[in-house]
Amino acid sequence: MNHKVTIADIARELNLTGATVSRALNNRKGTSEDTRRLVQDTAERMNYRRDRIAYSLRSGRTNIIGVIIPSAEINFFGSVVHGIESMANQHGYSVLLYQSNEQPEYEKKGIETFLSSRVDGILASIAKETTEFSHYLEIKERGVPLVFFDRANDSLNIPSVVIDDYKGAYIATEHLIRQGYKRIAHIAGQQHLKIFKDRLEGYKAALTAYGITVEDELVYFGNVSIASGRQAIQHLLSLSKPPDAVFAVEDFTALGAVKEIKDKRIEIPEAFGVVGFANESFDEHITPSLSSIDQQTVQMGKEAFKLLMELIEDKGDVHVQKRTKIVLEPLAAFRQSSMRR
Amino acid sequence: MNHKVTIADIARELNLTGATVSRALNNRKGTSEDTRRLVQDTAERMNYRRDRIAYSLRSGRTNIIGVIIPSAEINFFGSVVHGIESMANQHGYSVLLYQSNEQPEYEKKGIETFLSSRVDGILASIAKETTEFSHYLEIKERGVPLVFFDRANDSLNIPSVVIDDYKGAYIATEHLIRQGYKRIAHIAGQQHLKIFKDRLEGYKAALTAYGITVEDELVYFGNVSIASGRQAIQHLLSLSKPPDAVFAVEDFTALGAVKEIKDKRIEIPEAFGVVGFANESFDEHITPSLSSIDQQTVQMGKEAFKLLMELIEDKGDVHVQKRTKIVLEPLAAFRQSSMRR
Repeated sequence: MNHKVTIADIARELNLTGATVSRALNNRKGTSEDTRRLVQDTAERMNYRRDRIAYSLRSGRTNIIGVIIPSAEINFFGSVVHGIESMANQHGYSVLLYQSNEQPEYEKKGIETFLSSRVDGILASIAKETTEFSHYLEIKERGVPLVFFDRANDSLNIPSVVIDDYKGAYIATEHLIRQGYKRIAHIAGQQHLKIFKDRLEGYKAALTAYGITVEDELVYFGNVSIASGRQAIQHLLSLSKPPDAVFAVEDFTALGAVKEIKDKRIEIPEAFGVVGFANESFDEHITPSLSSIDQQTVQMGKEAFKLLMELIEDKGDVHVQKRTKIVLEPLAAFRQSSMRR
Repeated sequence: MNHKVTIADIARELNLTGATVSRALNNRKGTSEDTRRLVQDTAERMNYRRDRIAYSLRSGRTNIIGVIIPSAEINFFGSVVHGIESMANQHGYSVLLYQSNEQPEYEKKGIETFLSSRVDGILASIAKETTEFSHYLEIKERGVPLVFFDRANDSLNIPSVVIDDYKGAYIATEHLIRQGYKRIAHIAGQQHLKIFKDRLEGYKAALTAYGITVEDELVYFGNVSIASGRQAIQHLLSLSKPPDAVFAVEDFTALGAVKEIKDKRIEIPEAFGVVGFANESFDEHITPSLSSIDQQTVQMGKEAFKLLMELIEDKGDVHVQKRTKIVLEPLAAFRQSSMRR
């Protein structure tokens, strides 16, 4: 291979000091926007390649962030990651992903891997099976910036970007009421996860607001899966007074519900309405297309990255150690499965 | 935080030498299976935490592998990653993912990030837009083991795990012939990607084997997307002698085809048959459910990891520098969209 281009080479080429070139390359304060651009363009033209290990030892930064996602097979997370990546790219950061597969053991291993790879910060969405959070607290203890997205735990005092799940559930349930459904059930998720608890509360609040009594037998507690959606419908239809609509805690559960209702030859949306949550990409492809609540995923990713950047930049500044929480608005994404009017 | 448990502590606890404990922890040869297990269990019980930076400096290994995937939103790759992770977990490796978003620029950045994070090896599936491969050759030059999965390039002389795309396409086309369809079209993908080229060849070979003339006008070249599937159907149905079935190069294209055919009120599978490729998770959820070819994704991930392990273990051994290629069998996954008999 050829001579390796160094910061000194770029400095010589541009008649600048090495310190200025270094600051410009690392996006640090103290250089003008023009200089920064000139240096970065020149570095690219000269095929400069930062030795990240050396850079990391000098600066304490790697310009890599780690993202813990519960599953790469849920489009929701893929979409949030797109938002994260688009911002990271603009800021010269690389994004590494780690799948927890919804298991705390993997989550711990991912965090350990990120910490030993010396990432500059971590974004994470908590695994469904996680009920103990010491591995997240260790990130904090080590002084590495951490931001939760979507699945957060408020008691940990860690910044987060979430959507208003309560409001999303309220909008979904209100929509079913306005479509004229009379007995609206809810397929709930694991209640140790705040997002699922909030959705149950939003469902109850909408019924109450419209003068409808909340009936315990119309709330089914599932485990957030296609199978659980099917089981919920089997149970709900066996009631002496079965429901005529269901708000499911998320779209895979709603998909299972739709399948079971279709198998029972009940017409959707005429005789039975279904609304899910998350606006998964399959929603528009199934028949009938699935009504859902959109979580502004790309925006969530962008906001989470911005919050993390602030923590990285202001590391050590006590002010930002205060909890920050960004709450995004849920959006209606109603389709055939609930539109009978 | 408490006293950090070291290898010396574990050695003292078990009355072994530090070298033995170290070998056992690092899964190196020279310790019995029993000793290895005892040491690893004890390390876990004592809450031993390997300092990976120190370990890496000593051993030259990080026990991290990097995986470049074109997109986390394609279930196919999520499923391959599951296979990789299950093996990696057994072998004490952590898996980091990087999304190329089908763009060579991102692919380069991902490789750079992995190399500077000192991963022990890289698994990669080539981005659709990549036509120049120097960034992959650089991995080789740096002496870091690399294995391609699914989307490989044979001319680079890099080990790979792929499925027999030619055979998969042959099986899909033969199935349509046996179902009695008379004019079978193909929606092809970008021909610089070997997998798509092989599928076109397999389609042609099946027609020829059954004495059916291959007609150029029945092959539509798309860009592998839902929109492209719709456009293909619009074009094919406008022909003076339109087809009555289509084999699409992959499932998103097939999904677009199904949507367009349904919009035109043509009955599937009675009047028109559709088969895709990849066995994406949405296949069984759409109406009609989509026939496809299964690529043994989890197995592909496992084989790719095993091949990479061999390269990492035998690094420097010239024998394994020879090209290795593992070809998996495609499996039929036929559903409603093509089963008219």
